[in-house]
Amino acid sequence: MAVNRQCRLIARPTGVAQAEHFAITHGEIVDPAEGEILVRNTFLSVEPAMRGWIADQGNYSAPVEIGAVMRSLAVGRVVSSRHSAYAEDDVVVGWFGWQEFATVPASSVVRKVLETDLPASLALGVLGINGITALLALTRIGEPKPGETVVVSTAAGAVGSAAGQIAKIMGCRTVGIAGGAEKVKACLEDFGYDEAIDYRAGPIDDALGAACPDGIDVYYDNVAGPISDAVYRRLAVNSRVVVCGTASIADWSDWPTGPRVERHLLRQRTRMQGFVVFDHIAEYEGAIAQLADWVRAKRLTYREDVLQGIEACPDALAGLYRGENDGKRVIRL
Amino acid sequence: MAVNRQCRLIARPTGVAQAEHFAITHGEIVDPAEGEILVRNTFLSVEPAMRGWIADQGNYSAPVEIGAVMRSLAVGRVVSSRHSAYAEDDVVVGWFGWQEFATVPASSVVRKVLETDLPASLALGVLGINGITALLALTRIGEPKPGETVVVSTAAGAVGSAAGQIAKIMGCRTVGIAGGAEKVKACLEDFGYDEAIDYRAGPIDDALGAACPDGIDVYYDNVAGPISDAVYRRLAVNSRVVVCGTASIADWSDWPTGPRVERHLLRQRTRMQGFVVFDHIAEYEGAIAQLADWVRAKRLTYREDVLQGIEACPDALAGLYRGENDGKRVIRL
Repeated sequence: MAVNRQCRLIARPTGVAQAEHFAITHGEIVDPAEGEILVRNTFLSVEPAMRGWIADQGNYSAPVEIGAVMRSLAVGRVVSSRHSAYAEDDVVVGWFGWQEFATVPASSVVRKVLETDLPASLALGVLGINGITALLALTRIGEPKPGETVVVSTAAGAVGSAAGQIAKIMGCRTVGIAGGAEKVKACLEDFGYDEAIDYRAGPIDDALGAACPDGIDVYYDNVAGPISDAVYRRLAVNSRVVVCGTASIADWSDWPTGPRVERHLLRQRTRMQGFVVFDHIAEYEGAIAQLADWVRAKRLTYREDVLQGIEACPDALAGLYRGENDGKRVIRL
Repeated sequence: MAVNRQCRLIARPTGVAQAEHFAITHGEIVDPAEGEILVRNTFLSVEPAMRGWIADQGNYSAPVEIGAVMRSLAVGRVVSSRHSAYAEDDVVVGWFGWQEFATVPASSVVRKVLETDLPASLALGVLGINGITALLALTRIGEPKPGETVVVSTAAGAVGSAAGQIAKIMGCRTVGIAGGAEKVKACLEDFGYDEAIDYRAGPIDDALGAACPDGIDVYYDNVAGPISDAVYRRLAVNSRVVVCGTASIADWSDWPTGPRVERHLLRQRTRMQGFVVFDHIAEYEGAIAQLADWVRAKRLTYREDVLQGIEACPDALAGLYRGENDGKRVIRL
């Protein structure tokens, strides 16, 4: 019987899980029971939200249990199916976990990948949760209007780069905030931002002021923390803040403090709202069709950071939080 | 020539203006020029927002100039009119300032008071900015639905008491937060809250948990600060925070810090938004008509804290921030 290599969570971290919190184990490949499918994973996803899935505290999804295969979206090919909706060789994306083979109920499938003219890994990135999040959060909460100034944090990241490009498609002036000269370059050259600010190069307040002389109408935020504090001070009247992630804060178990936002919100009539993509499953197909059209038309581009093999799993999340990835991080099996 | 006693701002305070920042001066009563009216004020308003009007920093209205009559809404009777829209003896509410007589352009009038069957002072309270704010902010941003739990801070105050009662009219469970046993009693006996919490009686976290076992759907906030921090921790999924005031923080010139809100907003998909009533002038008449109907039907009640005479002006705002008022503070002339 063939071996299924799996990456399991073996200890609960404080803060971001490091390599030592995971172990590679060898399991059996299990035949699907009635209603199940067996998938051979081709790409595993690595994403900032995994920190929350691992944390053993109130969150918007149940924590991954100790000893369990790490929860993850993955894209793969159906090896055998005992569910009428799926057939051998279908390409599917779903909750297949950090493992080489997944035997899962059909309900673990998020969708069949229809865009087979485009690379399969995109189902984990710009045509997956990242792109869907960027499109839906930006349009539903950010509601950008042509001519408005849209600021994006982690502007070169998987979600941020899509949000910035979509805002540009919608006729906005886009300003990206990213860490380091290389990411700033990607913002300007790859993702079409009108301006890009390197927050590591110094206090960003003056740079934001120069880049946003009329204030900030939409802030698409993936970080929280001091970068956001600087943005809040420059919000325009009737502005919108899309709270999409809090990546700059590695640990909320000891709740961090910062400048209070209430006065900004009151003075500028700002609307600040959290967005969780899993609330919007009914809108996924429409969003993906739109994103795929933009990708084909070369109006929406992306970067991928591809690690190789199941061995790359344990350190993959920690590496993301070290900022070492260049684009959407996936693991190719 | 008759004397017009006026209360002027004579120095710019740090924080809340105290009695010494004002002076009573004696001026002339000026005949109205073409397009102007002369109003004899009968009630002057005292409201928390005056702190912001006085502060010499970015705000949603220009600061009151040193030496000027203190900006204030007032209700009065037209003594003489040189504008076709107003006639002698009309009751009007408008930006007439802390003075006995106001000679002002017709554009200073907010509206004619049509509800002459109800006390004139209500035009500064439950049928004025306070009531309008409560109704519009609660319904436009809070969007309460029947059966939801609505928490109101400064629950016995002029705005809060109206917000709580309107939420109750709309079928919500209402929980008021107020300071001191007397205000808690007013919440329960006068304003019909289902529960009331005295934040001075101890940490409010447990009391909030007991009062809101299913979480908080709408938070109508007038205070910011530690009370709000406790509420944020108990927000329900898809909750709304109406940022209507920041009364607990006397001074924003040295920006205060507190627990960051982003994670709450993200986890609970909360929408948090500032409300400034002056953006909604077109909706005033409709709101007042609704509020007046509720007052007449005894579904909406109010408390007034009436000071006597122009001499009461200088200390009136400071007293408000000392929490000594029992209801909407007005000054009867």
